[in-house]
Amino acid sequence: MAEITNIESLESVLEKHIPDEQLKEVKRLLFGKELKYITLISKLELCSAAVELAQKHSFEIKGYVFDAQYEQLRIAREVTVAIVQHSIVLPTTAAIEKQRKAIYEKIGNIVKAVATCNTNIICFQECWILCFDSICFEPAMPFAFCTRENLPWKEFAESAENGPTTAFCIQLAKMYNLVIISPILERDELHGDVIWNTAVVISNTGKVLGKTRKNHIPRVGDFNESTYYMEGNLGHPVFQTEFGKIAVNICYGRHHPQNWMMYGINGAEIVFNPSATVSGLSEPLWPIEARNAAIANSYFTCAINRVGSETFPNEFTSGDGKPAHNTFGHFYGSSYIAAPDGSRSEGLSRVSDGVLIAKIDLNLCRQIKDIWGFRMTQRLDLYAKCLNEVVSPDFKPLLKQ
Amino acid sequence: MAEITNIESLESVLEKHIPDEQLKEVKRLLFGKELKYITLISKLELCSAAVELAQKHSFEIKGYVFDAQYEQLRIAREVTVAIVQHSIVLPTTAAIEKQRKAIYEKIGNIVKAVATCNTNIICFQECWILCFDSICFEPAMPFAFCTRENLPWKEFAESAENGPTTAFCIQLAKMYNLVIISPILERDELHGDVIWNTAVVISNTGKVLGKTRKNHIPRVGDFNESTYYMEGNLGHPVFQTEFGKIAVNICYGRHHPQNWMMYGINGAEIVFNPSATVSGLSEPLWPIEARNAAIANSYFTCAINRVGSETFPNEFTSGDGKPAHNTFGHFYGSSYIAAPDGSRSEGLSRVSDGVLIAKIDLNLCRQIKDIWGFRMTQRLDLYAKCLNEVVSPDFKPLLKQ
Repeated sequence: MAEITNIESLESVLEKHIPDEQLKEVKRLLFGKELKYITLISKLELCSAAVELAQKHSFEIKGYVFDAQYEQLRIAREVTVAIVQHSIVLPTTAAIEKQRKAIYEKIGNIVKAVATCNTNIICFQECWILCFDSICFEPAMPFAFCTRENLPWKEFAESAENGPTTAFCIQLAKMYNLVIISPILERDELHGDVIWNTAVVISNTGKVLGKTRKNHIPRVGDFNESTYYMEGNLGHPVFQTEFGKIAVNICYGRHHPQNWMMYGINGAEIVFNPSATVSGLSEPLWPIEARNAAIANSYFTCAINRVGSETFPNEFTSGDGKPAHNTFGHFYGSSYIAAPDGSRSEGLSRVSDGVLIAKIDLNLCRQIKDIWGFRMTQRLDLYAKCLNEVVSPDFKPLLKQ
Repeated sequence: MAEITNIESLESVLEKHIPDEQLKEVKRLLFGKELKYITLISKLELCSAAVELAQKHSFEIKGYVFDAQYEQLRIAREVTVAIVQHSIVLPTTAAIEKQRKAIYEKIGNIVKAVATCNTNIICFQECWILCFDSICFEPAMPFAFCTRENLPWKEFAESAENGPTTAFCIQLAKMYNLVIISPILERDELHGDVIWNTAVVISNTGKVLGKTRKNHIPRVGDFNESTYYMEGNLGHPVFQTEFGKIAVNICYGRHHPQNWMMYGINGAEIVFNPSATVSGLSEPLWPIEARNAAIANSYFTCAINRVGSETFPNEFTSGDGKPAHNTFGHFYGSSYIAAPDGSRSEGLSRVSDGVLIAKIDLNLCRQIKDIWGFRMTQRLDLYAKCLNEVVSPDFKPLLKQ
């Protein structure tokens, strides 16, 4: 597990070893341009409170500013977004009550820190669920899909509209004037009790704006999610919040450019990508896909990954010929935010809890559309025609020989 | 122009400053995995000749191996590909004959070096055209679209099938048993003398397999290409060569994931992306887009950019409020090859001519399709339906409020 322990983050190594005069240029090449940091220590009073909370409760906090150009007819549309990555707290063998208390405290402190920075929108990681009234094995939902087991894992599934996690988020949303994106495991009682991988979007006034479902379901390595739920059937909804138009592309959907595209076509200005993915499988892909989507679709993307390792009581195999085991692998965190101009924030840690806060001017989306012209030159009519042909059973590839 | 002079390449800075034990991990995070280098100095006799040529004629040469797993029923399908980036040679004020001779020598030496490494397929940069019998201002075609002028630039346009550049490439193809991808400016005499941005694909036996045209045309910064030619009308052809199925996504087409997708759907195993792009405009996007396409489509991508600066006799403006000028900007090279597993080679230099050679096992494409399952989970029927709706004048975005 060299990849877990050697490096806290790519950024930490670069900062330690590369001389200042070249570091600036290296960061331009890697991250697109130099972003302003939100001054967390002293300048912004509210945020110094956040930093104190972070130090006290041992989570990382980073902040960046993504500017746009001045326009005469539109005022700057500044929005502050936060993305959270966190591990489970106590070992899975601890008493449920203790585990529950521990995760309350952790998430409570992170959200409190975020709120002191005047944050408008927050998104948690995939299936982040708090456990309120189900009989559960772990305090925040473990990513249990590797097991292919039913109980106790399916007991985490709850109603998107009326479940305990949504109720908890509604409270938080009202308390802190926060739009909350809450990715859960949804139990759909109206449709035969089926389960979905869902994100609930709650307005800053505490109203459930709606929900969106994971459109593409993995069957790769330990990610046996197709045992639990099917491909989402709600299309690619975009949610009009007080602070801008947002959408949620859940986890494996980030591998599918057409999925990203449809959120853009429906008008999204920020697309959140709550994920759960491990280092051996996807780390080379992680910095590429959400950033490419920001570029291709002229919107902001927020890539959020779990962090830490999760151990399960019963062993399972990975379809790779290796022995059975009890651990999923290392969720490598590294959450980041990318902008339509191709720039991105640095990433959060590969190994610890953290929150990344960004002040975004949403005017950048249309400005970049006007500069690069990707929408104007997209030729969607051509691709509508192409795909109509492709999905026909009689389709023949255009092969010259 | 700090970005031109400070850094030869990202890789050179990392190698110089980061300690060995961490460099390996940094490269894994940046490039996906550690690739084997082709031993250029001593082990492979043919390639030491290439290194000597490179040293003598001052171009960079780098080589990598992309392995695949052993299969029982298919032998390894090893192909060696080469991509070339080069600047013009003499100042544009030199005598035409001298300029011509200089570029002959440069390209001749690069192709000779490539051929000594048993290369199967080579791709030149966008509009790389040699000037044989047209009255031209520069020896290899400058990227003159910033000027919006007609003469002498449009004189570079020539027939894809019977033009002098194709004739030259046919000779090279036969001489070296090389598939050659030759991006040119095409004059289409059969259809009203219009001009296209085209790549000609020539088999290793010297047959013109066909041509493909740039599908997406930029109107951004100095890239006034829509003054010269329209969006390609040949779809997304894939060419069956002796060494595998290849396609060419020309330049600005790399910003459009649907364009990349269609080459994959038509069966491409390697997609070349001959480009011409400058540092102020696109450098943050460069390492992301072709690599994302390799991941999303389970094929290899070869990203090729011009290198150097080109000065034009008459000044032009860039639509950015800045004064008129005679230089396009710095073409930053940085050509690289990406694999379907998300790994990539290091890049060529940002400032000098170079050739990047890769030994590729094409079996990796299907192996990665089988592992990640992106094709199986792509839901093209959903997106065909979506796009049909989107291109309707009555389309309404799916917005929840």
